[in-house]
Amino acid sequence: MGVVVPLRETRTEPASIQNLVELTAEGMQAVNQVILDKAGSNVDLIPEIANHLISSGGKRLRPMLTLAMADLFGYRGTGHVGLAASVEFMHTATLLHDDVVDESDMRRGKLAARKLWGNQASVLVGDYLLGQAFKMMVDVGSLEALNILSSASAVIAEGEVMQLGAAQNLATDESRYMQVIEAKTAALFAAAAEVGPVVADVEGAGRKAARDYGMALGLAFQLVDDALDYGGSAADLGKDTGDDLREGKITLPVILAIKRGKPEDRAFWTRCLEERDVRDGDLATAIRIMDETDALADTVTRARDFGAQALQALDACPEGPLRDALGEAVEFCIARVS
Amino acid sequence: MGVVVPLRETRTEPASIQNLVELTAEGMQAVNQVILDKAGSNVDLIPEIANHLISSGGKRLRPMLTLAMADLFGYRGTGHVGLAASVEFMHTATLLHDDVVDESDMRRGKLAARKLWGNQASVLVGDYLLGQAFKMMVDVGSLEALNILSSASAVIAEGEVMQLGAAQNLATDESRYMQVIEAKTAALFAAAAEVGPVVADVEGAGRKAARDYGMALGLAFQLVDDALDYGGSAADLGKDTGDDLREGKITLPVILAIKRGKPEDRAFWTRCLEERDVRDGDLATAIRIMDETDALADTVTRARDFGAQALQALDACPEGPLRDALGEAVEFCIARVS
Repeated sequence: MGVVVPLRETRTEPASIQNLVELTAEGMQAVNQVILDKAGSNVDLIPEIANHLISSGGKRLRPMLTLAMADLFGYRGTGHVGLAASVEFMHTATLLHDDVVDESDMRRGKLAARKLWGNQASVLVGDYLLGQAFKMMVDVGSLEALNILSSASAVIAEGEVMQLGAAQNLATDESRYMQVIEAKTAALFAAAAEVGPVVADVEGAGRKAARDYGMALGLAFQLVDDALDYGGSAADLGKDTGDDLREGKITLPVILAIKRGKPEDRAFWTRCLEERDVRDGDLATAIRIMDETDALADTVTRARDFGAQALQALDACPEGPLRDALGEAVEFCIARVS
Repeated sequence: MGVVVPLRETRTEPASIQNLVELTAEGMQAVNQVILDKAGSNVDLIPEIANHLISSGGKRLRPMLTLAMADLFGYRGTGHVGLAASVEFMHTATLLHDDVVDESDMRRGKLAARKLWGNQASVLVGDYLLGQAFKMMVDVGSLEALNILSSASAVIAEGEVMQLGAAQNLATDESRYMQVIEAKTAALFAAAAEVGPVVADVEGAGRKAARDYGMALGLAFQLVDDALDYGGSAADLGKDTGDDLREGKITLPVILAIKRGKPEDRAFWTRCLEERDVRDGDLATAIRIMDETDALADTVTRARDFGAQALQALDACPEGPLRDALGEAVEFCIARVS
């Protein structure tokens, strides 16, 4: 396990993204307008499904990263708005396809689109949003930003395929798990942050710092998500707790619990995850084993390590209220689980 | 119905794309190498599925259009190879997602990927190929080509969603059908052809001619495909005849047969297409009604009209063996059904 690196204690109030929200409010209003425009289509089903997801109130953390990083590195144009909207569309397309792949019933506390309109429409509307995302990027006209975001698009899909291969396979180890979450989640955070300095024509250390920040934040975010699936309430998370167990996903809490648990627990994990036979009370059993083995606590510790890395990367970014707000966003992502 | 416009009779041998294949052979060898390279991934499932489709021997008509048009308009660089490979990846991604949406069992005479690896992997590997396609386009570096192909990507998905909405709906009319096939099929043919002059820095009439050729060819191609679904043998087509009937797809042969058929036939179409209750002998009944109403013959006539439009568009392109070969490709696409 990684070493516990405490987060910097710069403030006593609970962690919040309020400052980031306020500092990017004007840009996000423009992003939201672009999103509504570009999710439109003469084909009724498309805006219907897109709006269902878009209006269901995600935090829009990823496009905020793009806006904040562009601003932080001195960008004064409007191209960052199109890139931020592209990032959100890429994310939304991934959610639509993920729900089909995971056979999920809920998304952000509402019925998943696939439950309302079917798997077929979810696949195709996801494809449409991805196409629109690339069109928006092209409109911005930065080949380097296109390079970053199209690479992320391929890497995300690669991560999802990797996750599919790792599912129901108890032999999946920590290093494989880290590869999966870096690809399926952190790569988009990293790209969202990196295109900020890129659109501002900032290369070198600044660009690397933005990317490192996004990557570390994305890893922390996913680790916390995976801990919450065994800990938070469904209401908080906007999805059903225990989803990962039911779907046979091998996440870090499970990997640690198996590695450290009693040999006799193994049959339990095999039945739940490999045989996909999850019964009443199994989630409670899983959480009990995770408590006994410090699996959840150490997953959060790992998230804190990456949070500290994200803050360290910020040190190489220009000072100011936006940098502080990006620092608070790290604490916010991790505090969801504390 | 459109007027019958006979295709120019320039040769007596059966229509063939042999000349197009030979004239683009060197470039296509490079395209095939790029396809194999870019379909690679450390995640085993990705090359496995990609190679299944790629090696299953489609004609690669779309990337050949890109190579031929670039060459025809005097391009002497290597960027057309990357664009052609991108076009084929976009097409392959669409096939993977289509098979999931249509619940198809066969593709090009082989088991569909989704039957071998599951819907989940088909969705995700399609996403991966789409991401790789955009990466390749970015590498070529033409923002205009990126614009054309990303727009096509969104339009294709829009067409597929439209088709989903029109399926099982007997009220779908000819104009709606034409919108669907223009978006889902012809838009990629048009884009594949248009990026040829674009990468050669040719604008204006030449660029428009290439696009018009591709669009008309794509429409002819899809009309013939839709006729073949009620006429060709499964072996010729590489898919099951009668698929469209079983899937409740409202194609032109059906639209014409319903419009011109006896009122008492309507119950038959309602049962097959709206209620999706297709029984033994229904395909034969459908074909009999289509014969009685000239529905298949007039679908082919419509294809010939668009074929003539494609040839007309070619008149505005530079003369030479490549232009002749592109003309033969039109006849080849239509001759599949004659």
